Amino acid sequence: DLHHTCQWGTGQPWGPRAKPTETGMSRLALSGADKLARDWFVDTTKALGCNVSVDAMGNIFAVRPGRRDGSANAPPTCAGSHLDTQPMGGRYDGILGVVAGVEMLRVLEENGVETAFPVGVVNWTNEEGARFPISMVSSGVWAGEIPLERAHSLREVGGGTATMRSELERIKYLEPMAASHEAMPLAAHFELHIEQGPVLEGEKQKIGIVEGVQAYRWFTVEVVGRGAHTGTTPFPARADAMLAAARMIALSHDIATQHAGGLASTGILTLRPGSVNTIPSTVTFSLDIRAPRDSTLDTMESEMKRAFARIASKDVTRALDLAVNWQTDSVSPAVHFHEDCISVVEDAAASVLGNAGLSRRMVSGAGHDSVYTSRRCPTGMIFVPSRNGVSHHPEEYTSPEDCAIGAEVLMQSVLRYDRL
Amino acid sequence: DLHHTCQWGTGQPWGPRAKPTETGMSRLALSGADKLARDWFVDTTKALGCNVSVDAMGNIFAVRPGRRDGSANAPPTCAGSHLDTQPMGGRYDGILGVVAGVEMLRVLEENGVETAFPVGVVNWTNEEGARFPISMVSSGVWAGEIPLERAHSLREVGGGTATMRSELERIKYLEPMAASHEAMPLAAHFELHIEQGPVLEGEKQKIGIVEGVQAYRWFTVEVVGRGAHTGTTPFPARADAMLAAARMIALSHDIATQHAGGLASTGILTLRPGSVNTIPSTVTFSLDIRAPRDSTLDTMESEMKRAFARIASKDVTRALDLAVNWQTDSVSPAVHFHEDCISVVEDAAASVLGNAGLSRRMVSGAGHDSVYTSRRCPTGMIFVPSRNGVSHHPEEYTSPEDCAIGAEVLMQSVLRYDRL
Ligand SMILES: NC(=O)NCCC(=O)O
Ligand SMILES: NC(=O)NCCC(=O)O
Repeated sequence: DLHHTCQWGTGQPWGPRAKPTETGMSRLALSGADKLARDWFVDTTKALGCNVSVDAMGNIFAVRPGRRDGSANAPPTCAGSHLDTQPMGGRYDGILGVVAGVEMLRVLEENGVETAFPVGVVNWTNEEGARFPISMVSSGVWAGEIPLERAHSLREVGGGTATMRSELERIKYLEPMAASHEAMPLAAHFELHIEQGPVLEGEKQKIGIVEGVQAYRWFTVEVVGRGAHTGTTPFPARADAMLAAARMIALSHDIATQHAGGLASTGILTLRPGSVNTIPSTVTFSLDIRAPRDSTLDTMESEMKRAFARIASKDVTRALDLAVNWQTDSVSPAVHFHEDCISVVEDAAASVLGNAGLSRRMVSGAGHDSVYTSRRCPTGMIFVPSRNGVSHHPEEYTSPEDCAIGAEVLMQSVLRYDRL
Repeated sequence: DLHHTCQWGTGQPWGPRAKPTETGMSRLALSGADKLARDWFVDTTKALGCNVSVDAMGNIFAVRPGRRDGSANAPPTCAGSHLDTQPMGGRYDGILGVVAGVEMLRVLEENGVETAFPVGVVNWTNEEGARFPISMVSSGVWAGEIPLERAHSLREVGGGTATMRSELERIKYLEPMAASHEAMPLAAHFELHIEQGPVLEGEKQKIGIVEGVQAYRWFTVEVVGRGAHTGTTPFPARADAMLAAARMIALSHDIATQHAGGLASTGILTLRPGSVNTIPSTVTFSLDIRAPRDSTLDTMESEMKRAFARIASKDVTRALDLAVNWQTDSVSPAVHFHEDCISVVEDAAASVLGNAGLSRRMVSGAGHDSVYTSRRCPTGMIFVPSRNGVSHHPEEYTSPEDCAIGAEVLMQSVLRYDRL
């Protein structure tokens, strides 16, 4: 299923003689390719006996009824993740969690297994935040943490005019059901995901029992100077927005290194007017900062705000003042998952691996839809190894064996929670 | 004429209650707007009795015959500049020099003046280098300093597919005549231009007698790292192309400040893949360095090359190595204009201003088509004041009075050289 669905949005081949499955993925949220992958998900889960519903954010819930009388209305225990990818991403990030959920449904169906309560699989919209720049935005709306209006009006990065709402309409995944934990409650949410880091591989372990997720925040920083001729404008007469932005990006890194577990990264930068011999008047860049603790992130953020203001002032430019404007795009506080779910995953891993030495507890560096589901239902996550710790890159890879182990632990976790 | 022609490619208004003439210009070379301005130039100069010819770079030569028998074949003394602008440029840079040349033709025609030899006006193609990233590229081909093939195959900045050749064809300004000083020799070239700097205004002077142009070079620097997840990739495991590029841009500035008259600027920067939570794998930026002396520029270039290599190495990244690739786009050595032309301009300025205190000799910080014509014919330039020294910006401004003084000095210079 994983490779089958990667026919929609196939990205760059890698390796000297790439096999058909050795490519990255480029399946931006709500693109034509994303629509085809969604259609596959709907058709496949319906064929496996699920009731499928779509909400106002295009989140898709495939729910397989449970056994008990009256349980038809009980909330389902779900596996969930996302089918969208980075623009130059891999075949595993998100996709694995969804197709492993589908595999779970198939195993239950083929073996005639009846669960106590409904179980299901969720595909969350635009988890990556790569096209519409709030990550996990649609699980965020479901959790009541992000207003629907804000999400709907999010504009695609890179200066295009499409919004989430216009693209949901275009690909016909905008439905009347409220995107809300009230309209579509979940009993629990389990997410299988690749680690995206080097720890499991380094320690030769197979399963990460995820205890929580580090904090992170996304900002758009705009630096406003003044366009001028590069050949005739002496340094003291400049307000060079690119030079100031360069100093800010370099310093954000230096500040992050001074804090335990601190990270800072700039993945997007645009400037105007964009001519070799014109000093940029405006530079806009993204800033992604992370740390294990919210309080560390608070400190980093305020240090960066002070430092950027200093860089923009004429004391540092030795030229003219510039303006710096910060916009907060996304705030994801540190999360600790529900103890019941952590235990269920731990037990499932032990039963699949038979050897506790092959799993470990860990904290996720990346955000996941489970961050938001954890606000509204018990949530747990399962990590499998990423080769060389690589992710958000075409060469992202997890072996078929490790994917299968992860899928078994996912199914076991859902079934154990259902019994619980 | 100046404001009339600014109907083609009108840019941003400025000022709180902008008058119709208070806008910038956005007339990129060989755009639809540029074609309309060219058509005006051809029609107007033909109506003023000129023979108009266009060469293989779209350079337009409007030549008014002289008096002497046999002089029909003598090379013309020309005024020349350019009608293309920056993407967010002003109404004076280049345009003033061409329309002042047209005004000269009109004065000669209306007053029935016969010159000894032909005189004319040239519109050079893509002087700015803003759309096709070699400045003065078409006077460069005319001078035999840039191969026609290289110029024709120049691709527009920003990732488009248009080349100079395809756009010349599209707007119908590609003609069989060789773009060459042999096919179209000039007796001399005089260029009226705005100063684009603060000197004349600061010293309350009206005319700059330009002795020469400082040296400059343009490079495209590519930094290649590795795409990776911003949340799961610890600093030591990164090859962050954006962080390295930021450090390079900041350091190029610091290096330039250590050299007399040194300048360094980055006006274009693009990155891939361009996602908030993916560390850029590749960053490409322009680097424009300038200095009065070629030897200073040699030193600056080699210092920057060494420094950038150091920034990309794991000693500085404290992470993984990156690759840095330099491409030289344009080299414009320091130029000293012909003494005859400098004297002619000086005499013309004295006769127009009647007071030597209102003019001064100076060196141009910006390149001009006169840099290339000076390799093949005696060349001189005339500067008029730029308000606040502003150029390559919509608010670029020179008063009507100062434009008129400049146009008078231009005509006087051409007529004096014709007699010489
Ligand atoms: N797992 C993942 O890549 N999520 C996107 C949100 C983030 O940048 O952490
Ligand atoms: N005058 C002018 O802006 N010329 C463009 C070439 C340069 O950047 O100096």
